[in-house]
Amino acid sequence: MKLTARNTLKGKVTKLVPGTVNSEITLEIAPGIEIVGIVSKASAERLELTDGKEAYAIIKSSNVMFAIE
Amino acid sequence: MKLTARNTLKGKVTKLVPGTVNSEITLEIAPGIEIVGIVSKASAERLELTDGKEAYAIIKSSNVMFAIE
Amino acid sequence: MKLTARNTLKGKVTKLVPGTVNSEITLEIAPGIEIVGIVSKASAERLELTDGKEAYAIIKSSNVMFAIE
Amino acid sequence: MKLTARNTLKGKVTKLVPGTVNSEITLEIAPGIEIVGIVSKASAERLELTDGKEAYAIIKSSNVMFAIE
Amino acid sequence: MKLTARNTLKGKVTKLVPGTVNSEITLEIAPGIEIVGIVSKASAERLELTDGKEAYAIIKSSNVMFAIE
Amino acid sequence: MKLTARNTLKGKVTKLVPGTVNSEITLEIAPGIEIVGIVSKASAERLELTDGKEAYAIIKSSNVMFAIE
Repeated sequence: MKLTARNTLKGKVTKLVPGTVNSEITLEIAPGIEIVGIVSKASAERLELTDGKEAYAIIKSSNVMFAIE
Repeated sequence: MKLTARNTLKGKVTKLVPGTVNSEITLEIAPGIEIVGIVSKASAERLELTDGKEAYAIIKSSNVMFAIE
Repeated sequence: MKLTARNTLKGKVTKLVPGTVNSEITLEIAPGIEIVGIVSKASAERLELTDGKEAYAIIKSSNVMFAIE
Repeated sequence: MKLTARNTLKGKVTKLVPGTVNSEITLEIAPGIEIVGIVSKASAERLELTDGKEAYAIIKSSNVMFAIE
Repeated sequence: MKLTARNTLKGKVTKLVPGTVNSEITLEIAPGIEIVGIVSKASAERLELTDGKEAYAIIKSSNVMFAIE
Repeated sequence: MKLTARNTLKGKVTKLVPGTVNSEITLEIAPGIEIVGIVSKASAERLELTDGKEAYAIIKSSNVMFAIE
């Protein structure tokens, strides 16, 4: 499957916090660089996202903001 | 300023494509790892986001999806 | 590739409006039911989304609202 | 009320999963085609979204992605 | 029509910047307080959003972030 | 820190509803005008968002819709 989403970042799941409806997932995409996402709990279970699993973080470009110091 | 957004990724602007209302910005956050975002053109200009400038990509965790192969 | 996004709707591209940075795509997912999306022009071109092409509309559940009359 | 959101899909609520802060709602918009959304629990209650209720799924076009196989 | 979106802010359109695919709209919701939104050009035209028109800005609560100084 | 997000609305926290993964925060940005947002519980705690605290609601312009009556 090829996606229009511009950002597909490969990594390993390093943390999983399940809630009632949503779960919070942390993916390490480079040494020391992590992406945190909140997805529905049903989805996290369907993809069997657990510690150490290889996965991709996918982010639509219209959802990225920028900042400067 | 401290933000609730969970993802703040430091990098350097490597590409800028201005449109009429929006501009597309590419930030290199690690060697070979880039984040692409689309922001309003007015914002890109206000922050003077140009090639080589240090900046942060900011992503709310509810906007991150995950995928597996 | 399996995605955490809950909504994957199969259909056929029925309209494509290219802009400078973004393109607007219409997908018919059932007779008379269409989904319109705006994606970056680069993505629409990379996936060769053109009239009549089979594709999927993907929507994260946190981006769906509901209304009643 | 008329909305700028491009996607207004009529259907019937077929499932409701309440959480602590959010609720997950499933709407059947055509035979066998469902849309899942996560909204705040307070909103789901205010609109009395329950099984069998007629409702609309509303999706902003900038939140729609596309994929091909 | 009643919406699940938590934020419905009444105001007057004070600025409209049309692009190719999208248009940028500014709404004054209180003296000196403005909300800027980018919607598809087709939607802005369908709702005849022009200077001085009364309108509502609608924002899903999952799209609101917070910051402190 | 300067952000590309177009909407930065100053206010006072008037309500906080903590969940398991997410928290719901209400900010009064003008007399009688409130913005409700849902952020991860970890973020709400990190910023110590509590009743009466001065904070900003930040909204990306692509997440704003408009409506007319």
